[in-house]
Amino acid sequence: MAGNSFGNLFKLTTFGESHGKAIGGVIDGCPSGINLDFDAIQNELDRRKPGQSAIVTQRKEPDTVMFLSGIFEGVTTGTSIGFIIENTNQKSKDYSHIKDVYRPSHADYTYDQKYGHRDYRGGGRSSARETACRVVAGAIAKQLICNISINAYTSSVGDIFLEKPYQDLDFSKIESNIVRCPDEAIAEQMINRIKAIRKEGDTIGGTVTCVIKNVPVGLGEPVFDKLHAELGKAMLSINAVKGFEYGSGFCGTKMKGSEHNDTLNQDGTTETNLSGGIQGGISNGMDIYFRVAFKPVATIMQKQNTIDSKGNEIEMQGKGRHDPCVVPRAIPIVEAMAALVLADYTLLNKIIKH
Amino acid sequence: MAGNSFGNLFKLTTFGESHGKAIGGVIDGCPSGINLDFDAIQNELDRRKPGQSAIVTQRKEPDTVMFLSGIFEGVTTGTSIGFIIENTNQKSKDYSHIKDVYRPSHADYTYDQKYGHRDYRGGGRSSARETACRVVAGAIAKQLICNISINAYTSSVGDIFLEKPYQDLDFSKIESNIVRCPDEAIAEQMINRIKAIRKEGDTIGGTVTCVIKNVPVGLGEPVFDKLHAELGKAMLSINAVKGFEYGSGFCGTKMKGSEHNDTLNQDGTTETNLSGGIQGGISNGMDIYFRVAFKPVATIMQKQNTIDSKGNEIEMQGKGRHDPCVVPRAIPIVEAMAALVLADYTLLNKIIKH
Amino acid sequence: MAGNSFGNLFKLTTFGESHGKAIGGVIDGCPSGINLDFDAIQNELDRRKPGQSAIVTQRKEPDTVMFLSGIFEGVTTGTSIGFIIENTNQKSKDYSHIKDVYRPSHADYTYDQKYGHRDYRGGGRSSARETACRVVAGAIAKQLICNISINAYTSSVGDIFLEKPYQDLDFSKIESNIVRCPDEAIAEQMINRIKAIRKEGDTIGGTVTCVIKNVPVGLGEPVFDKLHAELGKAMLSINAVKGFEYGSGFCGTKMKGSEHNDTLNQDGTTETNLSGGIQGGISNGMDIYFRVAFKPVATIMQKQNTIDSKGNEIEMQGKGRHDPCVVPRAIPIVEAMAALVLADYTLLNKIIKH
Amino acid sequence: MAGNSFGNLFKLTTFGESHGKAIGGVIDGCPSGINLDFDAIQNELDRRKPGQSAIVTQRKEPDTVMFLSGIFEGVTTGTSIGFIIENTNQKSKDYSHIKDVYRPSHADYTYDQKYGHRDYRGGGRSSARETACRVVAGAIAKQLICNISINAYTSSVGDIFLEKPYQDLDFSKIESNIVRCPDEAIAEQMINRIKAIRKEGDTIGGTVTCVIKNVPVGLGEPVFDKLHAELGKAMLSINAVKGFEYGSGFCGTKMKGSEHNDTLNQDGTTETNLSGGIQGGISNGMDIYFRVAFKPVATIMQKQNTIDSKGNEIEMQGKGRHDPCVVPRAIPIVEAMAALVLADYTLLNKIIKH
Repeated sequence: MAGNSFGNLFKLTTFGESHGKAIGGVIDGCPSGINLDFDAIQNELDRRKPGQSAIVTQRKEPDTVMFLSGIFEGVTTGTSIGFIIENTNQKSKDYSHIKDVYRPSHADYTYDQKYGHRDYRGGGRSSARETACRVVAGAIAKQLICNISINAYTSSVGDIFLEKPYQDLDFSKIESNIVRCPDEAIAEQMINRIKAIRKEGDTIGGTVTCVIKNVPVGLGEPVFDKLHAELGKAMLSINAVKGFEYGSGFCGTKMKGSEHNDTLNQDGTTETNLSGGIQGGISNGMDIYFRVAFKPVATIMQKQNTIDSKGNEIEMQGKGRHDPCVVPRAIPIVEAMAALVLADYTLLNKIIKH
Repeated sequence: MAGNSFGNLFKLTTFGESHGKAIGGVIDGCPSGINLDFDAIQNELDRRKPGQSAIVTQRKEPDTVMFLSGIFEGVTTGTSIGFIIENTNQKSKDYSHIKDVYRPSHADYTYDQKYGHRDYRGGGRSSARETACRVVAGAIAKQLICNISINAYTSSVGDIFLEKPYQDLDFSKIESNIVRCPDEAIAEQMINRIKAIRKEGDTIGGTVTCVIKNVPVGLGEPVFDKLHAELGKAMLSINAVKGFEYGSGFCGTKMKGSEHNDTLNQDGTTETNLSGGIQGGISNGMDIYFRVAFKPVATIMQKQNTIDSKGNEIEMQGKGRHDPCVVPRAIPIVEAMAALVLADYTLLNKIIKH
Repeated sequence: MAGNSFGNLFKLTTFGESHGKAIGGVIDGCPSGINLDFDAIQNELDRRKPGQSAIVTQRKEPDTVMFLSGIFEGVTTGTSIGFIIENTNQKSKDYSHIKDVYRPSHADYTYDQKYGHRDYRGGGRSSARETACRVVAGAIAKQLICNISINAYTSSVGDIFLEKPYQDLDFSKIESNIVRCPDEAIAEQMINRIKAIRKEGDTIGGTVTCVIKNVPVGLGEPVFDKLHAELGKAMLSINAVKGFEYGSGFCGTKMKGSEHNDTLNQDGTTETNLSGGIQGGISNGMDIYFRVAFKPVATIMQKQNTIDSKGNEIEMQGKGRHDPCVVPRAIPIVEAMAALVLADYTLLNKIIKH
Repeated sequence: MAGNSFGNLFKLTTFGESHGKAIGGVIDGCPSGINLDFDAIQNELDRRKPGQSAIVTQRKEPDTVMFLSGIFEGVTTGTSIGFIIENTNQKSKDYSHIKDVYRPSHADYTYDQKYGHRDYRGGGRSSARETACRVVAGAIAKQLICNISINAYTSSVGDIFLEKPYQDLDFSKIESNIVRCPDEAIAEQMINRIKAIRKEGDTIGGTVTCVIKNVPVGLGEPVFDKLHAELGKAMLSINAVKGFEYGSGFCGTKMKGSEHNDTLNQDGTTETNLSGGIQGGISNGMDIYFRVAFKPVATIMQKQNTIDSKGNEIEMQGKGRHDPCVVPRAIPIVEAMAALVLADYTLLNKIIKH
């Protein structure tokens, strides 16, 4: 109820602040009998972890997950899976300068107003560090729905766009560069842009595109829990996300029905796929694809005017180690959230027919 | 669980097919003591109802709501509010031609595959007729949060865009034209476009912008239930919606942090509002604004190739009375869903502090 | 959240006051493809309805259920099932004498204090009339889990107890007498007791025993949602219930482990069944049986001292048509609630194994 | 959904097996601003922990709780509270003899059948060790509702009953003896009985009575979430519980309405309190009291016939350190579950009136 849980049947509840002892979570509803690949789970965490390349924050965190329950002899038991990730790099003194400061476009002011009290260190609960727990759960979800493939990639950084449709891309190249864009030439431009932005002490936004293949027909619940509505919520719940569109998205609003309709083939597939793999909130077996907008990171290494908790005007400047662009590290998070939705809806779909 | 409910504390559950006896819903969690304005509720239904103008479907439905419980002597009692809206215009024979047909970009195929059986008349449960129930509940939600103002309007039809920022618009003019665009000149263009499209037997998409003013600081729950994530899900659950963005949205991805950050004033307001009134998932007291993308209606009055339920290729043509553009009638639905989210989160915020 | 819903996956939400236009409900999560037996549903309602015999309230209500959605051509479609039961016997004037009176051991005082306002007619939302909706949903649940048999019967009225173990009873005789006790001799004593009590203008309590046979192994969720915990909640939510015990129940507390343990046979059955068919919250395939305590109905035809809503002492006397003993009409309600739990847990059990 | 969570707004989710690395939980929805008394929390754990006296299991576990999040500088922040309790006494070899054995009246068989796989060590997830997490959360709940007093005590062991009504007892004496019965003479009998039973290698059942004072009027939600229904579920979810009754309970079924009705005084209190402090599912301000039945512990130090996982008949005998009677250690668990319900319903009641 208080917002720290996600999912109906495959349900993740997370806890933890950026600079507490540990973050962690509980996955309730994971079926028994999954022979877990722990390397695959840690690999997803490594894709998200800080310090992994020259274009992300240089903070170092091993982000090693420790499972406490729900798994016996490597296999899920059907009981709740508890896990923690220790916070090893808690330089709390780094944050003494922001104790009483409301940083622009951060959650400092709103948390303080809402709760009357907050763990200000590293953003506390509002820190994107929390997404590491989503990645753990998402990695398990991927193993539950192993026939479905989920690939996200960087489709824009600032005004550098990867214009090619996803069908023309080789997803095996996503991990071949540090910005996670499957087109090498565009990737290089993106990397250079991020490096330049970092030198300015500034940050830049971007978009992530996610493509989900091999989805069975029938996932999605009417009326309020349409598959794309839940995917949208999942994505919008990730820090820094400002928008979500699927299939034809905002561009589709300019089209006519006669152009937009996807003609059905005899086998139930469609000739085009402007629908984005979902009809009436339910997957139709075609590829699901969507795009997620990330704003530029709010912490910049430039002087900014702001206020302190007493309403005094002050000048502040970001310190420490921050991401100049959140998108490269957001790729596994987008995939994880998509996996959570699909795992959950796969279970929901098991109870539909008598 | 099966997706027909929305909200945590102020919770709407709906039922009903397009051509059954009635549609309806239950609102659970509405506080006691609200002296309801029934005219205001019916007025919202009238804004949504078919047949209201020359640019919407000419189907006639009075859409009169009948409350069955939860209200005594005009005042909410705190118990569940049940209501129904009769389906008076059930021309079921209208739909015999689609009984075994999977209309392109409709939910016919996916419902049939998922459930093995469906009420094909008028789209059954997948019909947008269901949104009338949302409008009823939203109208009550508006009365619960009467200090908050919610205004939606048509911001584009096809490629005709209302470019002015919302601050330059006079919301009192939204209802002064049938397309619900507060700029008269643009409204006329939009109306003409829709009329032309109808003549072609075609349809067109568009966008709705919604502005919420006077929101108290503090609405929104971390981590998964961020205010904008729930608004996003609410909007994406409306029929024909393909995208959602709030604040700077997709445009914000091209910006630098130094441009995007909203500087705080001494009173906690911000100089700019690219954040769209929400920081870290929690309202900061500034205006909340977002944009919703609607695809062109799938039912067109032109011949299309498709398949029947046995996989045979057939040619079909839409019949009957349909909207050439969904946007004018979507305005009250967008507002209703926004009101449901805000009412729910207003209640959630009452239990935050000890 | 506000308590008008029951179930996780097979979920009933009810609405309605005793003297409003109608009561009703929504069943969400009922699988598609159930070819409903409507006579069986109405039959359950008839077992609960007032006026059915000389030992129940003589109020007349046909209690005819009208389904509004979720069923097409007699078969469930998987979408939400909305239904209403009209209140045809609303003698609201009957209740003018209790408008400002807090009847002893009724919910008048607590509802008024909690909500500040209530529909006082016939108890409003606190009336047991609401249980008719449970009977409708339970009757559908029974058809979902048609292999499982659920039989409840009157096992005591006042101090007249049916001492025989359930194994010695012929359940086919339950409906052969108006008190619904399968032992004819005891039934007659019970009926006479109730008739005598009615003459005194008084009421009497009793117990209901329920036996569930042919339950598959595996229903029940650890830790908080143990099968018997949910059955207990289901029963305790019925008006007038004061206690619940299953298997050995309160008697089992006097036993030693060596006496109480149920020895396993080679096929997984147990020699004895003091466990009541549930181990660790999960059904073990043996019969589930439990006992439910009902207090005497609070409305009596005798003078009682009480207060009005302003705190003045007054004398009042029950009027109208009331049950001298709630137990005979509670039988189908107990069965309905048991069916709801078992249907829900049957669905939950479909998603347990990978 | 999978049953490891309890509560609507003040919500506990637990994880952990008896012999894993740790057990733990997440409390979501705890309001911000509670200045926690950590000694009080640990004190509740100490009341539950093994090895505390001569009549409980001699297993040693410090049961020290470690909070990981949701608390900053000793005060709750409103974000999710994660905590763990390490399992320090994991003598897994103790359990090799039961690896393939289905112990009578344990959950071995049902877990194996349901999940196809289980952590057999110490009962795994079905172990009552899990209740330590409930005690942690309950101890925090008590601090949220600090005006309400909750006292549970042993009211019977086998056939030794504390017959005095709770009004004649001095609750301050509950902790003065190891069986937690506030009457010294009866306590001594109970202790002797338990010691004798232990010598026999056997176990014995008992009952716990719980009294809740100073409850405000208005807690409890109609219709399904009546206060006593949720209390009943809470208690029935505790290991070894077989029954629950409140107020007049099963005895009340023998009474007449004229005897059972609680006459209202001018101030809204009642002269008698057979209702047990709850009317129509809502607290009326009088003391809430209920009784919980615990069966004898299933693990006995005597030879028993049973089967192994292949269906072979075998003879087994309990080993290790077990409780001869669960009741003394169940007292803090009953109180914790009651506190969770009352905290949750206190929050629910904050959103009832407009």
